Amino acid sequence: MDTDILLERFRKVRGDSRRLAEPLSDEDCCVQSMPDASPIKWHLAHTTWFFETFVLEQYENNFQPFQPAFRVLFNSYYNGVGEKHPRPQRGLLTRPALGDVLAYRRNVDERIAALLADTGQGEAIARLIEMGLHHEQQHQELMLTDVKHMLSMNPLYPAYRESELAAAGAVPAMHWQAFEEGVVEIGHADAGFCFDNELPRHRQFVEAYAISSRLVTNGEYLEFVQDGGYAEPSLWLSEGWDWVRTNTLEQPLYWRQDDSDWNEFTLQGLQRLDAHRPVTHLSFFEADAYARWSGARLPTEAEWENAAASCRSLGEPALHPPAVENGEQEELAQLFGCGWQWTLSSYSPYPGYQTAAGAIGEYNGKFMSNQYVLRGSSCATPSGHARATYRNFFPATARWQFTGIRLAKSL
Amino acid sequence: MDTDILLERFRKVRGDSRRLAEPLSDEDCCVQSMPDASPIKWHLAHTTWFFETFVLEQYENNFQPFQPAFRVLFNSYYNGVGEKHPRPQRGLLTRPALGDVLAYRRNVDERIAALLADTGQGEAIARLIEMGLHHEQQHQELMLTDVKHMLSMNPLYPAYRESELAAAGAVPAMHWQAFEEGVVEIGHADAGFCFDNELPRHRQFVEAYAISSRLVTNGEYLEFVQDGGYAEPSLWLSEGWDWVRTNTLEQPLYWRQDDSDWNEFTLQGLQRLDAHRPVTHLSFFEADAYARWSGARLPTEAEWENAAASCRSLGEPALHPPAVENGEQEELAQLFGCGWQWTLSSYSPYPGYQTAAGAIGEYNGKFMSNQYVLRGSSCATPSGHARATYRNFFPATARWQFTGIRLAKSL
Amino acid sequence: MDTDILLERFRKVRGDSRRLAEPLSDEDCCVQSMPDASPIKWHLAHTTWFFETFVLEQYENNFQPFQPAFRVLFNSYYNGVGEKHPRPQRGLLTRPALGDVLAYRRNVDERIAALLADTGQGEAIARLIEMGLHHEQQHQELMLTDVKHMLSMNPLYPAYRESELAAAGAVPAMHWQAFEEGVVEIGHADAGFCFDNELPRHRQFVEAYAISSRLVTNGEYLEFVQDGGYAEPSLWLSEGWDWVRTNTLEQPLYWRQDDSDWNEFTLQGLQRLDAHRPVTHLSFFEADAYARWSGARLPTEAEWENAAASCRSLGEPALHPPAVENGEQEELAQLFGCGWQWTLSSYSPYPGYQTAAGAIGEYNGKFMSNQYVLRGSSCATPSGHARATYRNFFPATARWQFTGIRLAKSL
Amino acid sequence: MDTDILLERFRKVRGDSRRLAEPLSDEDCCVQSMPDASPIKWHLAHTTWFFETFVLEQYENNFQPFQPAFRVLFNSYYNGVGEKHPRPQRGLLTRPALGDVLAYRRNVDERIAALLADTGQGEAIARLIEMGLHHEQQHQELMLTDVKHMLSMNPLYPAYRESELAAAGAVPAMHWQAFEEGVVEIGHADAGFCFDNELPRHRQFVEAYAISSRLVTNGEYLEFVQDGGYAEPSLWLSEGWDWVRTNTLEQPLYWRQDDSDWNEFTLQGLQRLDAHRPVTHLSFFEADAYARWSGARLPTEAEWENAAASCRSLGEPALHPPAVENGEQEELAQLFGCGWQWTLSSYSPYPGYQTAAGAIGEYNGKFMSNQYVLRGSSCATPSGHARATYRNFFPATARWQFTGIRLAKSL
Repeated sequence: MDTDILLERFRKVRGDSRRLAEPLSDEDCCVQSMPDASPIKWHLAHTTWFFETFVLEQYENNFQPFQPAFRVLFNSYYNGVGEKHPRPQRGLLTRPALGDVLAYRRNVDERIAALLADTGQGEAIARLIEMGLHHEQQHQELMLTDVKHMLSMNPLYPAYRESELAAAGAVPAMHWQAFEEGVVEIGHADAGFCFDNELPRHRQFVEAYAISSRLVTNGEYLEFVQDGGYAEPSLWLSEGWDWVRTNTLEQPLYWRQDDSDWNEFTLQGLQRLDAHRPVTHLSFFEADAYARWSGARLPTEAEWENAAASCRSLGEPALHPPAVENGEQEELAQLFGCGWQWTLSSYSPYPGYQTAAGAIGEYNGKFMSNQYVLRGSSCATPSGHARATYRNFFPATARWQFTGIRLAKSL
Repeated sequence: MDTDILLERFRKVRGDSRRLAEPLSDEDCCVQSMPDASPIKWHLAHTTWFFETFVLEQYENNFQPFQPAFRVLFNSYYNGVGEKHPRPQRGLLTRPALGDVLAYRRNVDERIAALLADTGQGEAIARLIEMGLHHEQQHQELMLTDVKHMLSMNPLYPAYRESELAAAGAVPAMHWQAFEEGVVEIGHADAGFCFDNELPRHRQFVEAYAISSRLVTNGEYLEFVQDGGYAEPSLWLSEGWDWVRTNTLEQPLYWRQDDSDWNEFTLQGLQRLDAHRPVTHLSFFEADAYARWSGARLPTEAEWENAAASCRSLGEPALHPPAVENGEQEELAQLFGCGWQWTLSSYSPYPGYQTAAGAIGEYNGKFMSNQYVLRGSSCATPSGHARATYRNFFPATARWQFTGIRLAKSL
Repeated sequence: MDTDILLERFRKVRGDSRRLAEPLSDEDCCVQSMPDASPIKWHLAHTTWFFETFVLEQYENNFQPFQPAFRVLFNSYYNGVGEKHPRPQRGLLTRPALGDVLAYRRNVDERIAALLADTGQGEAIARLIEMGLHHEQQHQELMLTDVKHMLSMNPLYPAYRESELAAAGAVPAMHWQAFEEGVVEIGHADAGFCFDNELPRHRQFVEAYAISSRLVTNGEYLEFVQDGGYAEPSLWLSEGWDWVRTNTLEQPLYWRQDDSDWNEFTLQGLQRLDAHRPVTHLSFFEADAYARWSGARLPTEAEWENAAASCRSLGEPALHPPAVENGEQEELAQLFGCGWQWTLSSYSPYPGYQTAAGAIGEYNGKFMSNQYVLRGSSCATPSGHARATYRNFFPATARWQFTGIRLAKSL
Repeated sequence: MDTDILLERFRKVRGDSRRLAEPLSDEDCCVQSMPDASPIKWHLAHTTWFFETFVLEQYENNFQPFQPAFRVLFNSYYNGVGEKHPRPQRGLLTRPALGDVLAYRRNVDERIAALLADTGQGEAIARLIEMGLHHEQQHQELMLTDVKHMLSMNPLYPAYRESELAAAGAVPAMHWQAFEEGVVEIGHADAGFCFDNELPRHRQFVEAYAISSRLVTNGEYLEFVQDGGYAEPSLWLSEGWDWVRTNTLEQPLYWRQDDSDWNEFTLQGLQRLDAHRPVTHLSFFEADAYARWSGARLPTEAEWENAAASCRSLGEPALHPPAVENGEQEELAQLFGCGWQWTLSSYSPYPGYQTAAGAIGEYNGKFMSNQYVLRGSSCATPSGHARATYRNFFPATARWQFTGIRLAKSL
């Protein structure tokens, strides 16, 4: 890879993280609203720690850490690197101050740039930097979803950015696109970057199936709510039913009913629920129950990837998922850039999957239990991060990501 | 099906449950040691409730419940049938007394026999009774594992049956049996009984793999323990590592170290740990960590079923898993009758899976989340219950079943 | 003390425990319904352990424990005696069987009788035996309240003894008995037995006050319920209000409303709520809230004891609290034999309080935190156990004892 | 009261709160480290809410709330005023920003000043303002203890104020001051301000006792630690022993042992443990266990107040408790200005205690359960806030206040 191009890309991605924090105060960047979410300041520091730990420490001459204490404070989950600060306590770190973390970013950015200018070991370093940039983009998506959750806990319903959410026009009716049975190949194949969990490309046998042309809308999901979907056990997996009842859930995470109006908390503040935009912030259990109620099911990840293989439209980042436009030409709309799509597939290793040696091998493999694969991307996914082979994963109860529903049927 | 044969089989299976309770006192049959386990008395009543609810209520003229309150007390998890007594409170039911439950069993048995003698709707009834008998056999296995857990909580270490456990002879070295890549068929096909989760028979593509010739022994697992396996995070899935540390686990469920001796609690009381018998009472996380430590992995359920397809030896029930005998002729030993074998496969529906209509449809499908499939059978599985297509399933942390390890490798 | 009289009393009290278990099956005697309660079998064994540990072990020649394992299994909370079986697991002990525990009782009873016949150290032994009998009587009360709780968890509402509860006649109106200010003496003074927490007798200054002539009735408490008492925060202590809301409490422990009827679970099964009998099974928080609602308060223990000093009627045991009879002559009715009366006084040591040396010193003193003193006695208190200086104590949320309300006022 | 003097005092106390926040960043002021503690920003807002709600709303013409949402956000626990924001979520309020809260303070301060200038209802208003100022001083102490706890959770151990803690000189030996038995009066009597829980002044009978001349030092407490005090059950109340074991406690809250050195986290950062300063940050259970170990006991609140009645030295605020100076002349040193002193007395109403009508009556009375009274004051208590009749109170496990030990003995 050309060093100049890589450096330019490095500066662009690193700058994007900083820009995501710009609408926020120091206080906004410090607080953690739940153990699953992290403070913005922590994201800014941890992504920097990643470059310091996996690039500079290995390749910089006379490496000295910017601040020894940061090695522990901003380690997320890499046991191989040593101790970690407890995840639920990330929001207690008022020091280092946000300004100190931004200084940490500048320092590491300069040292990475110097390393790129100097080194003779370009290829290995370039691969690690590429990895670090994709890692940072994952955290950029989390910055938006974590801050959304934090703001949603405030009765003032503050907006991340104040702006009106335009009402979407009517969307085309859902239709089904069919695929034949057979051995298909899934997994990453081309020369571009991918995470280890997308490898190796391999064969799977898929029965004939059809997949829905677009995501389920808020309006459609509201019918499920109003039909008593959350009160009918036969629609739910047993574990999902227990979860719904224990938590007395009756609607998606950010919906709220004020008198007879339905509103939705968004990064642009509290807004009237838009019937035409896709429903998001659903757990796997809700997506699965809706699918059953509608007479369909969720797709497997092989079905999804097989269907998405020819898609070329990867979407554009936005603060809220866009509705499909009525004249859209794609056979399958909203594969990318709207909401992650829960699949029926538990997150497990592909046949022949290998983790990397050392701490970097903890990136993906050790999370392959009791999680479900989500496919596509969301409105919060940065440009250049999505691809058809991408495997996102969350526990069945996670709702704070932009997670929605694409339906499937066996034929 | 011939009614006489069915009735004979009905009497045999129903009698087996009663005989399992014979070594136990009324007190032993009443107590519940954890929410996952049920009292013996509850098992005896619930299996009876199953016949009363799904056969008698539907087909008996002028049906009257034996005791209306039992309809709620002994419903396990069927929302479609109405209310249920809370699972963790099953052990509080000192009434009905064990004698009353045995009277309930006799009453329902007589009415089932009368129904079989009378009816013109033989086929549908026969299918339901067949289903009820397989259901009862599942509970027979649980009776043994649940009572084992209850007895293990008693510092007196009482035996279910007092008897010496003979020391096993040395076992043959583990070797690997290889299978070629290709599309294989799995799922139930023949005319015999199966549960709905074994259907439909369908195709899967399987890469070339090898599977171990026998289960991992206590002696082999002890090496893992003594090598610090429970203290090395890189061997564990992230969730498993948290679970091990939170619960300060260092060995299989029923092992205990007394000074330098290793003992194991069994249904025959506390016994010296037998190095040659297969290790059991392991969670998925432990089985997976051991596999990683040994340089192998767990098999998928397709790999397991494909390998087991030609096996004819289904094992014999015993109170403790037998060692493989040195001269044993099978290529793959201990597929059945020793310990259930954890697979890498999450429990999910086969392509085209359909649940039955009504409450009986709650039997399997609604549990298809966050559980792993186990294959084979254990020493506690009743005769006539095991088959190669059988899909058992438990959460990744379950340890009170006879669960062990068969290894696999990608080729 | 005359040895013959003591032995007769020993046999009487020990026999009473056994007789309390007679209406119960082995199963009834084994189960534990919550950590605060213990199985009947455990009570039968622990009271025996008390004599074995504190009398036989110290005074019997060539002492051998009946069963070494019982030393741990039936130790309640005496750290000084060694290890204890965990309290919440008392209900898992199906072995030793009830029959074995009864044999343990017979064995210890015989050895105590032999010791009493033989010994020259009569006085010290007699004092310990006296202590053990009062200890056993405390457990007799717990046997009734614990088994009541256990039976109440059974949807069949089985009775401890099947019998009709006669409707009580109308009770006299509540009136107030006044006492002048001054220094009063409280604490045990006469030659009879008392627990260490009743000592030393000492002076307290008491302001002028009045105390209610009888306990609050079910009918009176129902008015509080129907007036919305459980929904009005200003009536409750802050901690009590949180507790009521967290547990969604709306009535006393054993009351239940079936359509418009109010019923109460009793040791005689489910019965129509009797408006004239005293309300019991209330927490301190409920008693305190009722008192505030009624414009009164609870008495302090000094006020209570000062008022009760001249009472001679100690009540008779019964399965349910009796109503006051209309013609009753006592100024203050229902001091004893109905329901324990919550006081405003936290359980703390009297000035100059001393614990005994050794494990027996753990009897009372170490529980003097975060509990409230209750005075009087209940219908479940054995004959000969109550006295005006007796200090019972429970946490503010305890409801499974026969606990009721006597009111007081500052003058 | 003279209005000018009151206004001056109002400005002084209000300014003190603001000044306490000056060493802190916006982030420091926003975060909540545990449910018991509140963010600095919340304290600044809640104390302002108190004046707005209890003074302005009642007495200001055409009252308009500064921000309607603040009525809920900054209500601490007054059910009578309406809804409250959940206490554990106070740290999630990144909005209003710190600057907005300071503007809220300025606005309310101006309106209070205007009200004081205008009004004809001077006396009632003056009483409420006086109450509000004492309320604010209570929160000033909490600001220091809450921020100390928050900073202690940060592995960087940041200081509230960077400064060296001077080593204290040797302290005089502890001696005992004796008091005779008799009826004493306690409770507030003079014309100055007091809280309702200090009333009415009343009589108590006190047996002869002695009280220690100073607080227990770090050095003395370290002997208890090194003697195995935390491992010896006979020294602890039963509930305290369970708490120590469940939380694996081995030393006071902010002590830490680094190799063989003992350090203590302070508002001035991590410092060498000073053997001569008083030990603080102890729970009631630790204070009680230490007292038992040392052969003494804690005083009752009547004993303490009787002993302190003639003390005139109320101490000066400091960031850390001072040692007693060797030449100090007071008979009883360190009654005020060092550490709050746990008493044996549960927090309960004085005889004849009355709460005020309305929401203001929720100030004290509703917390009178399961808490212990502490007497004196601490180094964090503002000037002019302490007095001998003051009743502070916390649960037996609270450790984040400056809480220490004064000993007593029965004579």
